[in-house]
Amino acid sequence: MIGQRIRRCVLAAIVCAPSYVVTLAHAQSDPLPSWNDGPANATIVEFVAKVTKKGSPDFVPPAERIAVFDNDGTLWAEQPMYFQLFFALDRVQALAPQHPEWKEKEPFASLLQNDVKRALAGGEHAMLEIVMATHAGMTTEEFEQIVKDWLATAKHPKTRRPYTEMVYQPMLELLAYLRANGFKTFIVSGGGIEFMRLWAEKVYGVPPEQVIGSSIKTKFEVRDGKPVLVRLLELNFIDDKAGKPDGINSHIGRRPIAAFGNSDGDFEMLEWTTSGSSPRLSLIVHHDDGEREFAYDRKSPFGKLDRALDEAPQRGWTVVSMKHDWKRIFPWQRP
Amino acid sequence: MIGQRIRRCVLAAIVCAPSYVVTLAHAQSDPLPSWNDGPANATIVEFVAKVTKKGSPDFVPPAERIAVFDNDGTLWAEQPMYFQLFFALDRVQALAPQHPEWKEKEPFASLLQNDVKRALAGGEHAMLEIVMATHAGMTTEEFEQIVKDWLATAKHPKTRRPYTEMVYQPMLELLAYLRANGFKTFIVSGGGIEFMRLWAEKVYGVPPEQVIGSSIKTKFEVRDGKPVLVRLLELNFIDDKAGKPDGINSHIGRRPIAAFGNSDGDFEMLEWTTSGSSPRLSLIVHHDDGEREFAYDRKSPFGKLDRALDEAPQRGWTVVSMKHDWKRIFPWQRP
Repeated sequence: MIGQRIRRCVLAAIVCAPSYVVTLAHAQSDPLPSWNDGPANATIVEFVAKVTKKGSPDFVPPAERIAVFDNDGTLWAEQPMYFQLFFALDRVQALAPQHPEWKEKEPFASLLQNDVKRALAGGEHAMLEIVMATHAGMTTEEFEQIVKDWLATAKHPKTRRPYTEMVYQPMLELLAYLRANGFKTFIVSGGGIEFMRLWAEKVYGVPPEQVIGSSIKTKFEVRDGKPVLVRLLELNFIDDKAGKPDGINSHIGRRPIAAFGNSDGDFEMLEWTTSGSSPRLSLIVHHDDGEREFAYDRKSPFGKLDRALDEAPQRGWTVVSMKHDWKRIFPWQRP
Repeated sequence: MIGQRIRRCVLAAIVCAPSYVVTLAHAQSDPLPSWNDGPANATIVEFVAKVTKKGSPDFVPPAERIAVFDNDGTLWAEQPMYFQLFFALDRVQALAPQHPEWKEKEPFASLLQNDVKRALAGGEHAMLEIVMATHAGMTTEEFEQIVKDWLATAKHPKTRRPYTEMVYQPMLELLAYLRANGFKTFIVSGGGIEFMRLWAEKVYGVPPEQVIGSSIKTKFEVRDGKPVLVRLLELNFIDDKAGKPDGINSHIGRRPIAAFGNSDGDFEMLEWTTSGSSPRLSLIVHHDDGEREFAYDRKSPFGKLDRALDEAPQRGWTVVSMKHDWKRIFPWQRP
């Protein structure tokens, strides 16, 4: 009876899942076709087998199979800079006519002269000014429309592809493979929560309620009888570094058993995940493929990977070489 | 093929659900056995039929079937005062030996003399002092243990039942009925998020990641090599009144199509839910049964229902009379 019930549930997980999962699940001989044979692939498959095997001491009930994924540099690219920053810069250009004062005011003055490097020289403060000027002051519905319109036309400066096509095929397979095995997949990113939610379901199969990110405060108001949430000029939460375990606790309320990142910004999330006593899977995507993608780590201003790379071996974190472990990077590249 | 797939998914939802759901689902002739026949029952069943009927103009895809439930007074009782306040008062007694200064300091001095009314006369400020003194200063894991220990022994002052048995049987059926129809059920409560998460899954079938509540800030620290989250003496979010749509937006990221509350604290949540254009279900539990539960509304210090009761008819919100619409209130009462 129990065996039958489990089989029925597994069957249901496959049948009721989005069509690409079904396609994947049919190819049961290789659940991760874009991953080369090697230790990273083996570590993932062994972990999933272990925690899903009923009766095994390492068995984890489906409700506790929580997997968290960083976004920038882990699920989609982050070079030459975070894609959300391209959005913000495009918005500065679009909004400039309403802000004549920007011509004299940094970081906007440099941006309007297309000198991004000088604009960002002001560091976090400059970044925050740009984000606030472009992400606040409208309702959540208005913001949604602005992001959707941008996504429909914006192109990555190097590949000329829409940003939502700059996603990593092996990670799409990993997301689907985990879900087919009863995992609930979450995004835990420093990116804006309301920015990511607009495309994460379509692109990754991750619904809005499973997206965790940085946020600004919102305020409920009734305007002409219609309730709205207004995006305020006030930071609410930065979902990066030590903020990630905090965001995980606040949104999920239980500790993940699997975590996937690519930078030192993910260190605490991996640390938090692996400090549990049962089996854990932690994985770092290492950007070492300058030919098919970008090669960067210790010195990159975006996605700096230094301490986590040094400590990965002693902490039992698997480092994935994009060059050696992945047959292809993007869905539109030939394997 | 599609029909077969849906049937298989419904079957799976039933087979894979907790056992009390299975029991319920078998009685398919009446999905809400503790609800009397009447307009409230009919409104619920008609709404569910409408949004789940494939091909109908009112069909809502499962991913968008979000239902939000207030907790205090909607899923479990809230008289003679919020149960979490009983927890806080018990903690004040337990912690008093470590705080000799409380003997001279309000609101603690009155509490230690068992004069709750005088202690709470200080209003929100007094309440906040009590909550902070009892809910902060420990790690999330320590807090979890404290709450679990308390729940194991604490009893409701009137019924002498554990607080987790003070839940409304008709609402348990409603939660299960919605889930069996593809809804994702969330709690959206003014209560503490980390307090509710510890028992919401077992009692309501609502997993931690679908519980939204008020919170204090936490801080990530590494103590003796072990990462912890420390609960700080600082409010993070009040999930009440206009905070509820905000909490819904922040945690769920899409607008619910069904909302259930019992007080003016739920007004904005119901308003936010019903302002969408597609079919919506909003329901207010009215505590009018002094015999089987408690009778209160416009003047109650806990769960005040005034404006929402007045405006329910014009806003299309269904008012449920506990006295007339429910065959029984608690699971342990005979129908």
